[in-house]
Amino acid sequence: MSTLLSRAEELDAEDPLAHTRKRFLLPDGVTYLDGNSLGPVPVGVPGAMDDAVRGQWGEGLVRSWPDWMRLPLELGDRIGRLLGAGTGNTVVGDSTSVQIFNALASAARLRPGRGVLLTDVDHFPTDQYLADSVGRLLGLTVRRVPAAEFGDHLRVSGGEVAVVACPAVDYRTGQLWDIAEVTAAAHRAGAVVVWDLCHAVGALPLELDAADVDLAVGCTYKYLNGGPGAPAFIYVNPRHQDRLDQPLTGWLGHAEPFSTTGTYRPAPGVARAVIGTPPVLSTVALQAALDVYEGVSMDAVRTKSLSLTGFFMGCVDELLAEWGFAVVTPRRGARRGSQVALRHPDAYGLVQALLRRRVIGDMRPPDLLRFGFNALYLTHQDVYAAVRELRAAVTAGEQHDPGLARRSPFG
Amino acid sequence: MSTLLSRAEELDAEDPLAHTRKRFLLPDGVTYLDGNSLGPVPVGVPGAMDDAVRGQWGEGLVRSWPDWMRLPLELGDRIGRLLGAGTGNTVVGDSTSVQIFNALASAARLRPGRGVLLTDVDHFPTDQYLADSVGRLLGLTVRRVPAAEFGDHLRVSGGEVAVVACPAVDYRTGQLWDIAEVTAAAHRAGAVVVWDLCHAVGALPLELDAADVDLAVGCTYKYLNGGPGAPAFIYVNPRHQDRLDQPLTGWLGHAEPFSTTGTYRPAPGVARAVIGTPPVLSTVALQAALDVYEGVSMDAVRTKSLSLTGFFMGCVDELLAEWGFAVVTPRRGARRGSQVALRHPDAYGLVQALLRRRVIGDMRPPDLLRFGFNALYLTHQDVYAAVRELRAAVTAGEQHDPGLARRSPFG
Repeated sequence: MSTLLSRAEELDAEDPLAHTRKRFLLPDGVTYLDGNSLGPVPVGVPGAMDDAVRGQWGEGLVRSWPDWMRLPLELGDRIGRLLGAGTGNTVVGDSTSVQIFNALASAARLRPGRGVLLTDVDHFPTDQYLADSVGRLLGLTVRRVPAAEFGDHLRVSGGEVAVVACPAVDYRTGQLWDIAEVTAAAHRAGAVVVWDLCHAVGALPLELDAADVDLAVGCTYKYLNGGPGAPAFIYVNPRHQDRLDQPLTGWLGHAEPFSTTGTYRPAPGVARAVIGTPPVLSTVALQAALDVYEGVSMDAVRTKSLSLTGFFMGCVDELLAEWGFAVVTPRRGARRGSQVALRHPDAYGLVQALLRRRVIGDMRPPDLLRFGFNALYLTHQDVYAAVRELRAAVTAGEQHDPGLARRSPFG
Repeated sequence: MSTLLSRAEELDAEDPLAHTRKRFLLPDGVTYLDGNSLGPVPVGVPGAMDDAVRGQWGEGLVRSWPDWMRLPLELGDRIGRLLGAGTGNTVVGDSTSVQIFNALASAARLRPGRGVLLTDVDHFPTDQYLADSVGRLLGLTVRRVPAAEFGDHLRVSGGEVAVVACPAVDYRTGQLWDIAEVTAAAHRAGAVVVWDLCHAVGALPLELDAADVDLAVGCTYKYLNGGPGAPAFIYVNPRHQDRLDQPLTGWLGHAEPFSTTGTYRPAPGVARAVIGTPPVLSTVALQAALDVYEGVSMDAVRTKSLSLTGFFMGCVDELLAEWGFAVVTPRRGARRGSQVALRHPDAYGLVQALLRRRVIGDMRPPDLLRFGFNALYLTHQDVYAAVRELRAAVTAGEQHDPGLARRSPFG
């Protein structure tokens, strides 16, 4: 054990991102490995919210709208930097579910005459629900195949595929897809691809423009720390922007938002992907949250993230393997995102026991413990502490304690 | 003039809602007649937001989700009280545009085999855009007719109408529709009706259950003061709830939100109308904002609202008629909402000139000045002051001042 702790201390001592931890308000004594579900509060958020409420809203009233109306594009561009997207390719707004719907339907309309929406059989459930809904509305068959069969499927049956929809990082296993490779395979088949970046954005470098990705959607409350239910974003490849034909034709995507003609005329460029009135207070929190990425290179984030997840797996091998834990996440760095999933039959009870020990992770039924690692605020010593507590919990059989509250999978 | 001022003072002296003004943080020296666009900050909001950011999010982190997940239904029920809706008929979430889309599409699916979506030719532009979008997706023809012709149209051609979509209060003229009468006419024709309550909720009593309204949608940032871009709501008649078949099948409307099967199974009751992750910070602001309605009867709000709008029209008649202003809003109380529109060729310049005089209203192109009256914080003396300033501005020809900034219609 002490060897692992010494190793953690060494790794932390040479961590070039050690200085970014103070950009967050982390609760005392808590080890937070659930930032892949909800990031903690960035230090600038409380002040920004108070200014938004008392100043912009309270004093400015409707006079603040000209500034607020710019937020979807302004924050889109700031997130675009993390996506490898040029300015004018990304907008922020609405919930992830809504953006997925709009993206899938818009993508399908780019390929009229093709009848299949191809998606990962293990895609996030919401993505699957919305794929079925879009398929029903637009007359597409939704075909679910395992990740490993995507390439073959596109080669053999690609001619009928309109849309390929997949996650950049699997929400359960943490497996990282090869965005450039799958995008190229989809394009060879003549399809357009919609990436769900929820578990990737802010966690690792992305190169959407370079990979010629068609459309992408992601949330901002996980690694981006935008706050609970912070607005989602959508990326639209410049070559599709002026043909984007979305079903959610809200007033703020109109060429003239204050037009009174009653006929929808989409704005030029990515602005048409804006839908309705932005949830300003939630958006302002995101605006302040994005400051934590200032001056940070995504390559540095990735390097540390791989170090954290690799060290975590090493600790698990050494301290937990004998207790029935199996690492589900790919061992090879290039194949994983920034989370690690462990399989254990008592996953639910163990996550609850950990919570009582002030280590926050989460679980996904039936048997996965899931831990997310945000390089901006976690240390290798946090990682070590989490594994030590998990070992202490399982050693004491705490997962069987009938006093553990039955709660939601959020913990 | 002094007679009008005396009358204002008398009316204010006997105002049973005088005590609710202190429930708002109004900027000093500003007369705010744009609460029909964005309500001011309720006094409890800054503290609630700080608690939400530092406490619920900052300290609670993901552990706060069980509480946050209840907000869409909890706030739906609180708004339901203002709608004349029983508990379990209303949920809060997403933008108004998104809710309109979901409501129109769900309504159309309740009447398969009918091919027309009937809407007001003067309906709010976003509602018209989304009617066209839904019509295109579901194969319905969108037919636009003037409000005055709705009854005749439904009598003659009602058999082909699936959905009737109209505003409770016209956003430009302030005309109040007869919700019960139009709903009954739609039902006689076999159609379902979707009301847009954006300019009605919080401004006047509504009786959705009693009128057997099918579906209704509204925003919460106007008379309800929920903050810029606060989440919208949707009302679903209990007899439709278990057949509601919405296109936006997000995870939080699922019977088991944490299910991992990838197949959408809607929650029982109104909970299925919830879509994705709620924008929690914006939702918490709304939660605190709704407190201003505690202990307030909507009949008292309506009585005072009619007094304010009636007094405003009286002041306009006396002080502004000679300057080319015409009242567009119905004179008869039962036919108007809580706003008054004036027609004047210099509407744009006049609203800007008023703004410089610290009276905030807004305008809608090409020639309408629009003033909203929230009975919870406005006085008859405010009304008088606004008309006095408008007269001073027009008398001095300030609307032609080239120094007035060209800004958005928000002012």
